[in-house]
Amino acid sequence: MDYAFAQRVREMRSSAIREILKVTERPEVISFAGGLPAPELFPLEDVRRAVNEVLGNGDPSALQYSSTEGYPPLREYIAETMRLKEIGVGPNEVLLTNGSQQALDLLAKLFLDPGDTVILQRPSYLGAIQVFSSYEARFVTVGADAEGVIPESLEQAIREAHPKLIYLTPTFANPTGETMSLKRRQAVAGLAAEYGVPVIEDDPYSELRFSGEVLPPLASFDQNGWVIYLSTFSKTVAPGMRLGWIIAQPDLMSKLVLAKQGTDLHTSSFVQRTVHQYLVTSDVTGHLGRIRVEYGRRRDTMADAIRRTFPAGVHWTEPEGGMFLWVTLPMGLDAVDMLHEAVEEKVAYVPGISFFPNGGGENCLRLNFSNSTPALIEDGVKRLAGLLARRMG
Amino acid sequence: MDYAFAQRVREMRSSAIREILKVTERPEVISFAGGLPAPELFPLEDVRRAVNEVLGNGDPSALQYSSTEGYPPLREYIAETMRLKEIGVGPNEVLLTNGSQQALDLLAKLFLDPGDTVILQRPSYLGAIQVFSSYEARFVTVGADAEGVIPESLEQAIREAHPKLIYLTPTFANPTGETMSLKRRQAVAGLAAEYGVPVIEDDPYSELRFSGEVLPPLASFDQNGWVIYLSTFSKTVAPGMRLGWIIAQPDLMSKLVLAKQGTDLHTSSFVQRTVHQYLVTSDVTGHLGRIRVEYGRRRDTMADAIRRTFPAGVHWTEPEGGMFLWVTLPMGLDAVDMLHEAVEEKVAYVPGISFFPNGGGENCLRLNFSNSTPALIEDGVKRLAGLLARRMG
Repeated sequence: MDYAFAQRVREMRSSAIREILKVTERPEVISFAGGLPAPELFPLEDVRRAVNEVLGNGDPSALQYSSTEGYPPLREYIAETMRLKEIGVGPNEVLLTNGSQQALDLLAKLFLDPGDTVILQRPSYLGAIQVFSSYEARFVTVGADAEGVIPESLEQAIREAHPKLIYLTPTFANPTGETMSLKRRQAVAGLAAEYGVPVIEDDPYSELRFSGEVLPPLASFDQNGWVIYLSTFSKTVAPGMRLGWIIAQPDLMSKLVLAKQGTDLHTSSFVQRTVHQYLVTSDVTGHLGRIRVEYGRRRDTMADAIRRTFPAGVHWTEPEGGMFLWVTLPMGLDAVDMLHEAVEEKVAYVPGISFFPNGGGENCLRLNFSNSTPALIEDGVKRLAGLLARRMG
Repeated sequence: MDYAFAQRVREMRSSAIREILKVTERPEVISFAGGLPAPELFPLEDVRRAVNEVLGNGDPSALQYSSTEGYPPLREYIAETMRLKEIGVGPNEVLLTNGSQQALDLLAKLFLDPGDTVILQRPSYLGAIQVFSSYEARFVTVGADAEGVIPESLEQAIREAHPKLIYLTPTFANPTGETMSLKRRQAVAGLAAEYGVPVIEDDPYSELRFSGEVLPPLASFDQNGWVIYLSTFSKTVAPGMRLGWIIAQPDLMSKLVLAKQGTDLHTSSFVQRTVHQYLVTSDVTGHLGRIRVEYGRRRDTMADAIRRTFPAGVHWTEPEGGMFLWVTLPMGLDAVDMLHEAVEEKVAYVPGISFFPNGGGENCLRLNFSNSTPALIEDGVKRLAGLLARRMG
């Protein structure tokens, strides 16, 4: 057969980079490519206890259809954690989703007509680029430095491009790991309100802070629903659950609920009930503390190894949290080209171009440190250093 | 704030019927409105045992990110059950989804541009109408009788409307409960291939057969991928899991995987692993047998009560399986109008118009029998009979 696919998907195809990275799933490859948490830190026994408590009292409701909005006690729990972050919302402003990726998909569905513009920080999260692309968005990218996106550039882009959405990861951005300063958060929230453009604040990583000072989320500087906050339990509990949430004011919430209803009725009751039970009966603070200590150790190991072994002329970020370092090679070196060689040496990363929808980043690469043990990090960085020495030497 | 929503969602709104039916969630209302399975039949203890086996061996992979396609042993299990239904596929043709609703959403995303036509049987499943509407589809509806959609009418509609998709529930259709005959299945599969139009075969109910002869699915008459088969564990294990699947040939599968990746990365590993473990370690046949016996009893109770109590001039289906009876009142009676009164009498149903995207069905209503005990069914039917007697007497 020869299917007559819709316009928007005729050009859909797996990226060449994804094809190369498939080999990194082999156990002998040291992969800094994925964005995976460390599975050995998952709270396996606490989750098991929680699910036994949920299913063990003879109440079958955890297996029944439930409301599109989500399990009420979990919405209440999330609203409470939001208030601790200075986002003043109640449970009715919380929508449970299948991870943040679904939140992005629902928001794209609601806000984007084909040809509409989305403003992104440059570079920006690949999964967001993919979902906005699937709604035929055009992109305008705005420069960022160690303090995050540059407000003057953002304002100019808003004036020129009339975007329907702005997408930002203010804390420990993917891929750079960098964090927007307090002053810029105030400025960006102000711009959203001034120009009436919704900003999606994607915040999967803020609980993974190893050092430096906690900053209030962008949404805490917004009083009128222009900043739409997303987060997830993927990094703090476990990504295999596929459980995240959106904070939305009533007008947006009612549309999101209709969109989600059409998409999959609701997020798994079994998952929501299990995660809620885990959250209210486990030492969540202790668990997060253990993750932070271990991820901090891995970041240090990676940064130290790079410092010791990479040739002069290579630059890298040393984020205060999250899961990634961002490496910039001297101009003229091509990280896609080098990936083939890296994979032969059994080490992998994601080339920078994946994070630049309008081109750029050829000499950049993203390294994940959360999913490899310190010993493997040492070893993998050494292999990369060897490659770089040959190319730059 | 005043959000600038996309074109397609500016008119999105909760239906008036949904608003009325919200009151049916109160425990004192006998609701024949929902499409819920009987929660007292959920295999709670077997699921609990299964999830303990999954989490209890120290392997954290059930909580980690996993592939978009789905858990390989579950894909293999489903392929095996498909082969038993004469659909000759391997595990690589199985995509796990968050219930069939997500399968419909992904297929709509792949096949529909705004203004494209979808052919539906008349009446047709509300959730499918909603998802196709959200992609701005136009509908052409085709008449059906007790043997399912009428092939001559379907062929004429295909010739005139050049549809991008045909959507059918050949076995125990929602809302009528009726089943397409063997001869018509052959004819419809032939039309799909002849005209090169993909037919979505939505098959959530075929395992819920209480009487009559098992029929092979529509997809078993198709050799070239024109019939796209969907099913779900919602009716056979538990809907709160949100777990279903699509059978797709490689060309379609690769697009579906990209679309699903953008939508939510993958379906919960925790859910997939738990359901797989349940399936391979439990007496699934025995469990299905118990559901069939009980649902058959409830259908009989409802049909008998209707026969005894409804006024002459009312007609209803008596399906050999599924979860619904379809009631046709004399012309001129309005089931939406009557719903207000029914809710006052603490009994609820879904008015027929919900299932007719282009109008019609004013004098029809759908009754669910799976989610009420026989005693409540007796009582609820009696209340409806009282209402009808007043209106028709």
